[in-house]
Amino acid sequence: MANLTNTVISTRVRLARNIEGYAFPSHLGERQAKEIVRLVTSGVARLDEFKIYYMDKVSEAEALSLKENHLISPNLVGKRNSAALINGDESVSIMVNEEDHLREQCIVKGLDLKLAYGAMSRIDNSISKLMKFAYDEQLGFLTACPTNLGTGLRASVMLFLPAITINRMMPRVVKSISHLGLTVRGIYGEGSQAEGYTYQISNEVTLGVSEGEIIARVNDIVKKVCALEEAERNELKTCSSALDIHDETLRSYGILTNCAKLSTSELIAYSANVKLGACLGYIKLADISQIDELVVKMRPSNINNASGRELTPLERDVYRAQYTAKFLKKIVE
Amino acid sequence: MANLTNTVISTRVRLARNIEGYAFPSHLGERQAKEIVRLVTSGVARLDEFKIYYMDKVSEAEALSLKENHLISPNLVGKRNSAALINGDESVSIMVNEEDHLREQCIVKGLDLKLAYGAMSRIDNSISKLMKFAYDEQLGFLTACPTNLGTGLRASVMLFLPAITINRMMPRVVKSISHLGLTVRGIYGEGSQAEGYTYQISNEVTLGVSEGEIIARVNDIVKKVCALEEAERNELKTCSSALDIHDETLRSYGILTNCAKLSTSELIAYSANVKLGACLGYIKLADISQIDELVVKMRPSNINNASGRELTPLERDVYRAQYTAKFLKKIVE
Repeated sequence: MANLTNTVISTRVRLARNIEGYAFPSHLGERQAKEIVRLVTSGVARLDEFKIYYMDKVSEAEALSLKENHLISPNLVGKRNSAALINGDESVSIMVNEEDHLREQCIVKGLDLKLAYGAMSRIDNSISKLMKFAYDEQLGFLTACPTNLGTGLRASVMLFLPAITINRMMPRVVKSISHLGLTVRGIYGEGSQAEGYTYQISNEVTLGVSEGEIIARVNDIVKKVCALEEAERNELKTCSSALDIHDETLRSYGILTNCAKLSTSELIAYSANVKLGACLGYIKLADISQIDELVVKMRPSNINNASGRELTPLERDVYRAQYTAKFLKKIVE
Repeated sequence: MANLTNTVISTRVRLARNIEGYAFPSHLGERQAKEIVRLVTSGVARLDEFKIYYMDKVSEAEALSLKENHLISPNLVGKRNSAALINGDESVSIMVNEEDHLREQCIVKGLDLKLAYGAMSRIDNSISKLMKFAYDEQLGFLTACPTNLGTGLRASVMLFLPAITINRMMPRVVKSISHLGLTVRGIYGEGSQAEGYTYQISNEVTLGVSEGEIIARVNDIVKKVCALEEAERNELKTCSSALDIHDETLRSYGILTNCAKLSTSELIAYSANVKLGACLGYIKLADISQIDELVVKMRPSNINNASGRELTPLERDVYRAQYTAKFLKKIVE
C-alpha cells in the first residue's frame, strides 16, 4: 500500500452548473448577469454561513489573496458582475458567472474523493431546489464548454511527485493517464507549469459516465500513481545519485533556515526539496503538508494581509525569509 | 584603531641561511647534500624538541599533511636528501636543502612580528654557533635567489580581506603596497590565487635594510590595510548590496551546517562567507580563527590522518560535511 500521506496533498471536486433561461456568462447581458449574481447570492447565503465576495467590489489585494489560496480562478479576478461565496473553513467555494453561472468546488486535505463529492453534492442538491439548472435528458448538465457537459464534474487530486519527476518518468505517466481519460496539470490549472514537483490529476471525460464512475476511476489511478511514486522514492535512496539528492535536500533546508531574503520561487523550489528530504527520511518532519501550508502563507498577498499593508517585493522577501526560518525550525525535529 | 583580531590571521617570519663551503642546493652533489642534512639535523635536534622528517623517508600522506599545514613548502615534498625539523607546537619549522640549505620559519597567531622574529632569531643564533653561515660584509647573508640576499628575512602577515576584495579595492592596495617595497600573495605563496579572501603581505626587499626596519615597515603597512578593511566593512553594511551580502553569509552558514557532502573548495568559499558574516555582525561567532582551524583540519591529508586510512575523495567529502556541521553548530551561538 502506497504512503498516501506524503504524496497526496489535497482532493478537489468541482461541479459546473448553469441556470435555465439564461445565456452562458460569455454571452450574458449586464442586466441578466446582475440577476444571476443576485439570485445565487441571496439563495445560497441561506444554505450555510457563506461569505460573499462581489468581484467588482473587493480590493485587488483581497481578490489576489483569494486567487493565491485557490478559492477563485484567475479569470474571476476583477471580473464585472461576478461573485464568490466561500464557507467558514474555506473548504467550499462557489464562483458565480465565471465560465459557467455556477462553479461549485470543495477541497479537502489528503485523498478523499467521496468526502469532497458528498459535501459538494449535498450543497448542489440544495441549490438545485432554489433555481432550475439547465439540463438535457441526453446530454446531462449543460455547460459553456463542451468538455464539462454531462456530469459537470471534475474530480482532481493534487499530488507531490518528486521521485517520478527526478527519474524522468513523468512523460510516461502523463501518456498512460491520458489513455485512461484523465489528465495531468500544474497546480494553477490548465497550461501552468508544475511547481515544486506538484501535479493535479483529474478526469477529462464528464459525459457518458456517472459521477460514481468518475470518482472511482480517479481514485484508482491516483493510488496507482502513488504506488509508482513510492517505488521511485525507494530507487532514489539507492541510486548512484542518492548522495547528491540527500545533499541537495539538506542544503535546501539549510538555506531556508538561514537566509536574509527569500523569493516565492526560491521558497517553492527549496521547500519541495525539503519535502522530498522528509519523504526519503533525510529530514525529520512529521507531516509534509505543513510545508504546503507555509508556501500558501508566504504568497505575496497573504504576506501583505498578515502585515496589514502592501509591502514592497523586497520587504516581502525579507519577511518571507524570517517567517520561513522560524516556522521550519519549529516543525523540523 | 583597526580590529586586528578579525583581520590578521597569522604572522610568519622566515630566515634563509646557507652554510659556507657548500654549493646552493640546486648545484649540490648527493654526498654533500647528505652531509648538510646530517649536520643540521644532528645539531638542531639538540637545541629544542624538534621532530625530524627525512623527506625521502616519510610517507607521501605525511609529506602532504606537512605541506597542507604550511610546515613545509610544496617543493620539499618528495625531495631527495632534504629534511624538515618541526618543534612541539609546530610554531617553528626548519627546512633543510629546499632552495637554501636552511629555511627557518616561525608562525604565530595574530599580528606579532616581534614575537615571531624574536623566537626565530634566538634559534638562528644558536644554529649559527653550530655551523658557519655563508655571509658577505657587503651583501650580508648569501642566498640561492638574489631576492633573499642581505637579511634573508621574509616577514609575512596573513590577512582576511573580504571587504577590500568585494569592493574591488584589491588592485589599488596591491599597487600601493608594491610601491612601498612590499608584496601581496595568495596564501599558498607566489603565483597562487587568493583563496577565501585571504592574502599574505610580506616584504619584497631584504637587502640594504635592517631586520628591525623590515619588521617595522610590514607592521605599519599591515595596520593601514586593516584600517582600510575595517572602513570597507562598514561600507558593506550600508551599501546597496548589503542585504545581498547578509543573505549570502547566512546561506553559506546554512549550507555548511546542512549538507551531506562538502568539497574543500566549497568549504573554503562558504567558510570565508561565514567569517565575513561574523565580521559584519550577522553571525555570532566569538573568534573567526576557529574557522581557519576548521579549514586546516578538513584538508584532505588531515582527514585521512584523523580517519587512520586514506579515504576516497567522496568519503572525505562526506566526513567533511559531518564534521563541519557539528563543529560550526558548536562554535556559533
